[in-house]
Amino acid sequence: MASEQSPQLRVTIEGILNPRSVAVIGASKDPKKRGNIALRNLIEAGYQGKIYPINPSADEVLGYKVYGSVKDVLDEIDLALIVVPASIVPQVVEECVQKGVKGVIVTSSGFKETGKQGAMLEREVVRIAKAGGVRIIGPNCIGIVNVGLNLDATISRTIDPTALKRGGVAFISQSGAFGGAVFTWAQAEGIGFSKFISYGNRCDVDDADLLEYFMDDLDTKVVVIYIEGVDNGRKFIDVSKKVTLKKPVIVVKVGRTKLGSIAAISHTGAIAGSDEIYDAAFKQSGIIRAQDIEEMFDYAAAFECQPFMKGDNVAILSNAGGPAVAAADACVNYGLKIAPLSVETKRRLRSRLSPFASYVNPVDITAMGGPETYGLCLDTLLQDQNVDAVITIVARYSRDVQPAIETAKSVVDRAGVYNKPVLAAWTARGRAEAAKEILRNNGIPVYTIAERAVRALSAMAIYRKYLDKRQDLQP
Amino acid sequence: MASEQSPQLRVTIEGILNPRSVAVIGASKDPKKRGNIALRNLIEAGYQGKIYPINPSADEVLGYKVYGSVKDVLDEIDLALIVVPASIVPQVVEECVQKGVKGVIVTSSGFKETGKQGAMLEREVVRIAKAGGVRIIGPNCIGIVNVGLNLDATISRTIDPTALKRGGVAFISQSGAFGGAVFTWAQAEGIGFSKFISYGNRCDVDDADLLEYFMDDLDTKVVVIYIEGVDNGRKFIDVSKKVTLKKPVIVVKVGRTKLGSIAAISHTGAIAGSDEIYDAAFKQSGIIRAQDIEEMFDYAAAFECQPFMKGDNVAILSNAGGPAVAAADACVNYGLKIAPLSVETKRRLRSRLSPFASYVNPVDITAMGGPETYGLCLDTLLQDQNVDAVITIVARYSRDVQPAIETAKSVVDRAGVYNKPVLAAWTARGRAEAAKEILRNNGIPVYTIAERAVRALSAMAIYRKYLDKRQDLQP
Repeated sequence: MASEQSPQLRVTIEGILNPRSVAVIGASKDPKKRGNIALRNLIEAGYQGKIYPINPSADEVLGYKVYGSVKDVLDEIDLALIVVPASIVPQVVEECVQKGVKGVIVTSSGFKETGKQGAMLEREVVRIAKAGGVRIIGPNCIGIVNVGLNLDATISRTIDPTALKRGGVAFISQSGAFGGAVFTWAQAEGIGFSKFISYGNRCDVDDADLLEYFMDDLDTKVVVIYIEGVDNGRKFIDVSKKVTLKKPVIVVKVGRTKLGSIAAISHTGAIAGSDEIYDAAFKQSGIIRAQDIEEMFDYAAAFECQPFMKGDNVAILSNAGGPAVAAADACVNYGLKIAPLSVETKRRLRSRLSPFASYVNPVDITAMGGPETYGLCLDTLLQDQNVDAVITIVARYSRDVQPAIETAKSVVDRAGVYNKPVLAAWTARGRAEAAKEILRNNGIPVYTIAERAVRALSAMAIYRKYLDKRQDLQP
Repeated sequence: MASEQSPQLRVTIEGILNPRSVAVIGASKDPKKRGNIALRNLIEAGYQGKIYPINPSADEVLGYKVYGSVKDVLDEIDLALIVVPASIVPQVVEECVQKGVKGVIVTSSGFKETGKQGAMLEREVVRIAKAGGVRIIGPNCIGIVNVGLNLDATISRTIDPTALKRGGVAFISQSGAFGGAVFTWAQAEGIGFSKFISYGNRCDVDDADLLEYFMDDLDTKVVVIYIEGVDNGRKFIDVSKKVTLKKPVIVVKVGRTKLGSIAAISHTGAIAGSDEIYDAAFKQSGIIRAQDIEEMFDYAAAFECQPFMKGDNVAILSNAGGPAVAAADACVNYGLKIAPLSVETKRRLRSRLSPFASYVNPVDITAMGGPETYGLCLDTLLQDQNVDAVITIVARYSRDVQPAIETAKSVVDRAGVYNKPVLAAWTARGRAEAAKEILRNNGIPVYTIAERAVRALSAMAIYRKYLDKRQDLQP
């Protein structure tokens, strides 16, 4: 659709994602209603732009003067967050057009996802908006978050607007409720977002539009998309090909099986196409496909903070044998290589390690190696020209968390120096979280098991090879 | 080896895992030394049996009288935890033999894992113990934990002896340090252990011996094993075949690739054989193979608390569409079926749900369905004869955790009634953990994503089919 944009529709998505003013159409006094939640989210997140609650039958909500219509607001309105029943949406969108609102988010459900009548209503809304040059996100969605702007323009009861964590990951979710839950999950894992968009039925602004926007968004380093299907495949592929040259795009697509596809249709009304077609399209466009949400964030964490490998040679540094072996297994499984260490590296490791340690790759420093030794070994490995990346494993812990904290600092000190990716697989839980926190806060992604770290590294290697190939094709 | 046990060697493993008295040979005053940590672990865990620190050059440690040798102790000694340098181990094991100690744990490293000389020393220790009818766990291990007995007979600095969580999972780990870390991890996930054994070089008591013991251990419902390889494959398979008829056995075997295998050898001296052979052997013996530690605990949690499915038909109950679709995908991927709901079930669901909900399988109750509706729908699904198991998904959360807690209670109330497995995939984090805790405490395993819940359910289905087949083969 958007490829047939008329000039007046080109009013950018910027108005929606970076608004200077937001109207909440359907703002309510009742704390249980979405029109109240939406307004509270905006306020509690600390949005600094202007907020205009709209409701013909109220005069004041949460300390804000309420307007009967957007048309009664004298100021310009960039974004209208619509929280009214589906049947009234055409009317309020019409008023938004008349007011010159730049973009609207229609959170209301009762459209395409409910059947023929809803689909008709949806088309009517699109017609009004297009004619008026207004862009729509939704309907049947929870809205958007711009963390940098402290903007929570959602009806989400899940996302905590007072605890938004800033980061380089833009998260686009077709599913609203699930998107909200995943948002909290990512935050608990220490993954911060730049922007979050739930677009639901995607009647106007779609993945491709958002991808194009995020391509040039300075706050966004990685784009992740959770979809059940794509409406306009050609447009999606064309845009993805452009965007993936600049930024990694990670996609989880559910609804891959026939039965899953049926469920996807009843959920948002999208047609979940044949999975093989998606696989091929993603590959062709440089998109990294993740099998599930966990894998998606595993990848996002690595892509956000770490440089790419120049080759496929991985060094494994561990203080316990078992997970080092598992990591070596995983490297081979995921198409990476166990780096053959240089003679000099092995000599230096041998001089630093106990006779029981392994100073071939995987390097196991055993219980004898403390934080200092761990850091020195990491440094030695990163210096080796045969080593393109290091997986650091800590699986031997003290109840006293101090040594783990020292080890984390030691890793952080060395990891940034050589422009090679360093990923961590630190196993213990409980008190050990404090040490992992240090790694995360310094841009080193932490995985529960070595296999997941290796998988993320492998995704980065595949993407780098895609980029290399594309570069070769450039004239 | 143990299949050639002499009668006097039959002194049971019971003495090691359920000792009435423990000697710590090499008990030390120095809090940094393992001989001190071992004693502290014993004391702090609250072990109620008798504790005898042994050290020829000390008279008192941590308030305990120290004996020069086990032979100086007048009382009987069931278990000796040996924490002395490798070179002295033959001598102290000889003294244990003379004293009539039932079993010893040799934590010391410096044996087979270090090369030829260490291997010779290890054979010497085995020879002395065998001749004297004493069984050995180790060497090069961290020891054992019997949670029910408050016994922490380890040199682990990782496991917190004051916070042992009791459960039905026996965990056998070849790797010591990693085993310790995984122990804390399982506890953080709410998985409790019956017993934990790190056996390191496995010079005498091996997986098969322990499996045989756990077959009849009333505290143990599921056995999980983390190995790099098996020494006596025939014995392992024979015993496994017996044990898996009574209890599920879950194995993670690392060292599957050639390079991984090399690392495994340098780690504990075990030969990690061809992976295909292991795969076939596990399958033949009814062992459930997990690919990694996460999968291992995913399975353990399900097997520990949930009944088996009678057929392959899964119902999915969700309050958001996306993950319901993902769960349906996963069911098909893992060889399970999406249960066709009965007409009566669909009628009852329809009467309870909003018109926007999906009352075919997967059932999406949407935002309209609160805790009460969720529980009623679960009950309806469990009553349906076409449904063999239910995956409950909660991906729509309130910041106010109360509704999620109510939903959890509602699930718990219904889940236990029908003797069908109910697994949970609850996505949100942070405050939502309180609701998940209620599920876990009531025997409902909770997964981060639906895919993992389905995978665990599938492992249970495969095991049940194995049992069915074996039953058919019985005369």
